[in-house]
Amino acid sequence: MADTLQTDRTRVRRIPNRGAYDRATIHSILDAGFLCHLGFVVEEQPFVIPTLYGRDGDTLYVHGSAASRMQRAIATGVPVCVTVTLVDGLVLARSAFHHSMNYRSVVVLGQALSLTDRDAKLHALRTISEHLIPGRWDDVRPPNEQELMATTVLGIPIVEASAKVRLGAPGDDDADYALPIWAGVVPVRMTAETPVDDDRLLPGVTTPGYATDYNRRFGQ
Amino acid sequence: MADTLQTDRTRVRRIPNRGAYDRATIHSILDAGFLCHLGFVVEEQPFVIPTLYGRDGDTLYVHGSAASRMQRAIATGVPVCVTVTLVDGLVLARSAFHHSMNYRSVVVLGQALSLTDRDAKLHALRTISEHLIPGRWDDVRPPNEQELMATTVLGIPIVEASAKVRLGAPGDDDADYALPIWAGVVPVRMTAETPVDDDRLLPGVTTPGYATDYNRRFGQ
Repeated sequence: MADTLQTDRTRVRRIPNRGAYDRATIHSILDAGFLCHLGFVVEEQPFVIPTLYGRDGDTLYVHGSAASRMQRAIATGVPVCVTVTLVDGLVLARSAFHHSMNYRSVVVLGQALSLTDRDAKLHALRTISEHLIPGRWDDVRPPNEQELMATTVLGIPIVEASAKVRLGAPGDDDADYALPIWAGVVPVRMTAETPVDDDRLLPGVTTPGYATDYNRRFGQ
Repeated sequence: MADTLQTDRTRVRRIPNRGAYDRATIHSILDAGFLCHLGFVVEEQPFVIPTLYGRDGDTLYVHGSAASRMQRAIATGVPVCVTVTLVDGLVLARSAFHHSMNYRSVVVLGQALSLTDRDAKLHALRTISEHLIPGRWDDVRPPNEQELMATTVLGIPIVEASAKVRLGAPGDDDADYALPIWAGVVPVRMTAETPVDDDRLLPGVTTPGYATDYNRRFGQ
């Protein structure tokens, strides 16, 4: 396997020193996020849909209703783009022009394969669940045959991809450092709050640790 | 102007009671976010790129380098899709199948128009800046002519759009409520932390209130 997932289509053109193509960087960003934006084309119109995902090795998994427009369009093997973006901060420069955002993003280009094998579907669903909230899968009622049939699961090979990362302080024009304007970074991150119990919990059922301790940090 | 931004292409098919098409709902979600995922097509391949945006009335604005592949592709008037997603919580049901996410999202379909008029570009850039961090624009050095030339600004009319919202508790199958499995919601939200001063601030320059008080809540 190649060590780089760069192709001409995924090469970062703008500010190329923000680009990275190695598996370790790309996988670490994919593993830190849980929401992707999946792009596909129907009759020349692009659609971009938010959806949960999971990663196992060099495959991304997404799932959806077998009845959905997205799943039906994508399962036919059309080109897709999966983008994951983690926002780390607002970069406030002395000039309007140099304002920016600190972020980590990954773009994966490829084709989605619809999984038909029962065990492969179950494995992918477990992967998505454990990616989102490790430990949950073994606690819940697993999918029955009817639910499996109603669920489309897509696998997208991570073979053509790029990461883009911006870190750190603003970069102002030399002359602008003489201006008495505040500049810096406002860090932002995703935080989890105290879980809210469902109203219909059975007596004695307590909140599991993976829910009370859930605090997937997008920020640092 | 129509009160609905629904078209056949933006009608929410899956779980249609989560769909909304009124301006107020769509605008409120767009105004709560600041990052969009912009989809466009180049040679049948969709690309999905994260970018900041602003809204003024029925127009979304995005900007970028005049040299970027995205801006050049989009400025030719090809169809685009702009998606904004705010994650509000992880919905943990008793069955794997009914796990979900609480979120608010908007999908806008349309064509991007490249702004060429100097004042229109400045207005759009100010709109994007004030959308991200109100109060900042008047404090900074405004774009000079060279910077304006190097910046492509796109306007996307919000005429064909849909919102999708999921709120509240998990919805389990009737029989599953008898299972001794914890279920509920883990709320998540974006939070801002204490601003980090740039190393090269002039003496006496203090952090403005819009940075110290920045706490755009995605959650509630």
